[in-house]
Amino acid sequence: MIVRTETISLETQGHGDVRDITPAVSDAIRRQRFTAGMATVFSPSSTSALTTIEFESGCVEDLRRYFDEVANPKRDYAHNARWGDGNGHSHLRAALLGPSLTIPIVNGRMTLGTWQQIVFVDLDNRPRQRELIVQMVGDADVGTVESMENA
Amino acid sequence: MIVRTETISLETQGHGDVRDITPAVSDAIRRQRFTAGMATVFSPSSTSALTTIEFESGCVEDLRRYFDEVANPKRDYAHNARWGDGNGHSHLRAALLGPSLTIPIVNGRMTLGTWQQIVFVDLDNRPRQRELIVQMVGDADVGTVESMENA
Amino acid sequence: MIVRTETISLETQGHGDVRDITPAVSDAIRRQRFTAGMATVFSPSSTSALTTIEFESGCVEDLRRYFDEVANPKRDYAHNARWGDGNGHSHLRAALLGPSLTIPIVNGRMTLGTWQQIVFVDLDNRPRQRELIVQMVGDADVGTVESMENA
Repeated sequence: MIVRTETISLETQGHGDVRDITPAVSDAIRRQRFTAGMATVFSPSSTSALTTIEFESGCVEDLRRYFDEVANPKRDYAHNARWGDGNGHSHLRAALLGPSLTIPIVNGRMTLGTWQQIVFVDLDNRPRQRELIVQMVGDADVGTVESMENA
Repeated sequence: MIVRTETISLETQGHGDVRDITPAVSDAIRRQRFTAGMATVFSPSSTSALTTIEFESGCVEDLRRYFDEVANPKRDYAHNARWGDGNGHSHLRAALLGPSLTIPIVNGRMTLGTWQQIVFVDLDNRPRQRELIVQMVGDADVGTVESMENA
Repeated sequence: MIVRTETISLETQGHGDVRDITPAVSDAIRRQRFTAGMATVFSPSSTSALTTIEFESGCVEDLRRYFDEVANPKRDYAHNARWGDGNGHSHLRAALLGPSLTIPIVNGRMTLGTWQQIVFVDLDNRPRQRELIVQMVGDADVGTVESMENA
């Protein structure tokens, strides 16, 4: 049993930019040679969030419309009244969707469904440079350079 | 420290069918003799989700009514316009509720509250056969047949 | 790799009382000398939940207003009709927000963002005494009293 942590860097457009990070998480698991265990993806931010969805333009549009309805940027927010940065809706949406996601790894692969992708949703009101955390806990094929270095 | 993975099979009615899977998860933990650690329950699907709730008909009805209000199947969805399968609301609801849940195991039992059950919510628009993942990471009573076989 | 479990006790006012538990979770990690791994915070209750948010009065007020809009305590709930305890909205809100949160630990610290705090939200309709679970799985500095006692 080992713990390994990787980061995923991405530049987003903000404003509900939905990005498929499944390949990047899969790469991290493969690179660390995990065979079984858990991958936790975490967004270290209060204006972005993670979930899974079928990553196609229709579902993405439906998710964005939903948030525009229940947490519209044009209404009043106490956060904006106090701080004036105009992203009160971003904070609310991020708290509702949540910053972390844990996915089982079995036989070296995440147990995602066929039409299920891991998405990062940048809810801030401007483009952002983001660093996500991918942490794996479990069994790895120990005959790797990384594992030997860290043994 | 070991990792073990089990599956839970269930047939649902779809359309917001809410199913109490607490006994099935407890059985998996007992069968694998876990004493301490984490159980992650994961739904490998983009039209279903997991949460905890007091599993009684009133709470279940309230949850279903909520989703009918905020993501009604009769309104327009971009997913439906593109793919014609009529389950755009299912995808949206599943993304909002989330596919994974991690519950601590202490002294061989999950630390659930007295009135708190783990529920699988099938949000698709038709009956489905589902396979959920239960993955446990932690300490187990190693004097078991399964553990020795997997040692 | 070890597993350690701690509890956080707190008295809340209920009614959407939002409490910053980041210092208490950090203390648990430091006390157990975890250097790498996962911290899962879990609320063993069906009328409370966990998420992360920028913990300032504006964001807290926006979150509370949101829940008052989508799950107002004054409307009818099937849970209340059946049980008469008046907290149907609490159960619904808790199921939507979710009871568990997993945060990576790297170099002895949680990978939270600068403006991101872990909050416990008590959604019940009365003051409550709560016990939350903090479970850590990963690597710890084993030269500690706790670790030696539990070895």
